[in-house]
Amino acid sequence: MPRSKGDHEARRRDVSAAVWQVMATRGFAGLTLRAVAAELGASTGLLTHYFPTKRALVEYALDLLEQRTLSRPRREAGQGLAALRDALLDILPLTPEAVDSNRVWVSSWDAALSDPALSADYARKYAQGRERLRSRVAAAQDLGELPRGDPAHIAAGAQSFVLGLVVQALFDPVTFTPERQVELLDGYLAALAGGGSGRG
Amino acid sequence: MPRSKGDHEARRRDVSAAVWQVMATRGFAGLTLRAVAAELGASTGLLTHYFPTKRALVEYALDLLEQRTLSRPRREAGQGLAALRDALLDILPLTPEAVDSNRVWVSSWDAALSDPALSADYARKYAQGRERLRSRVAAAQDLGELPRGDPAHIAAGAQSFVLGLVVQALFDPVTFTPERQVELLDGYLAALAGGGSGRG
Repeated sequence: MPRSKGDHEARRRDVSAAVWQVMATRGFAGLTLRAVAAELGASTGLLTHYFPTKRALVEYALDLLEQRTLSRPRREAGQGLAALRDALLDILPLTPEAVDSNRVWVSSWDAALSDPALSADYARKYAQGRERLRSRVAAAQDLGELPRGDPAHIAAGAQSFVLGLVVQALFDPVTFTPERQVELLDGYLAALAGGGSGRG
Repeated sequence: MPRSKGDHEARRRDVSAAVWQVMATRGFAGLTLRAVAAELGASTGLLTHYFPTKRALVEYALDLLEQRTLSRPRREAGQGLAALRDALLDILPLTPEAVDSNRVWVSSWDAALSDPALSADYARKYAQGRERLRSRVAAAQDLGELPRGDPAHIAAGAQSFVLGLVVQALFDPVTFTPERQVELLDGYLAALAGGGSGRG
């Protein structure tokens, strides 16, 4: 009997899950056909059907990372400053799933920085992220929740703050618990809003 | 004639320079004996004398990164808030040399996160960095230049801010020129000092 479309889709999902698991535990440096095959309990021969080259595997992994990032659930609770806070919370590694995807993002920076096309693509993605933050900063300013000042400038600062917090939290999850990450972000937003560093 | 100690030292310096150059352009993912040999204009055979295994090469590269970080020139101009600013400026990729070393640091995160011992070592280094910042935050508070508040909390935020700014600047040096990086840092420090986000 020929295999059905459902079998094929199920197998693709298994392959994706295995690639993701390898990236989340070993990073891009550890992403090999052999490691994915072991994770999947399959032969490397089967995998060469999906990924004829190492480059094909890396490209698939990068696509998977982007899909998972785009499709992740997002907070949509507030407006103004609360909406800015939601967008920044969405980036932080506050859940095991968000730890995995941030781990994979940080891991992908090495490959991305070595490849001019990929590096330009990442620069464009981060610029889009800043633009989304900028519009939320401007809305918070309109509501009088943030002082006036170039919203693009404030958005670039906010993106820097959360990216660096991601890195710190990945290396030191004991110090940077989810609670502490949220506390640091709220301290940052309070300082932006004009309260200075003076919390805690 | 036997080769002198001076020859040996000169050769070691050449090897170090070649390893550094490969890391700065291709990252850890591109760090191979073959790439270092090509950079050095030598045979891979010669290099196996220095690095019998890939692991030995990676360990050497990590040591080199640490040495270069520890021995880099540092700003020592101010005290209080100015000293905090100096310490944060020392981290940013404001010169070609600092771009290279930050590029290598960011690249090393992939390898470090996949290795529990190395990851713990990085967490320790970042904790030491935060401690140095904390003492400068406390000094700025004593001078009345920063509002009261847990200095460790403020130091963790400041470290996050500059680490994320490093990543942004590496991916998008056209947007994040040295001038813009300094401007963003000064905006951050002004907000901490109680001015809110309102510059620009």
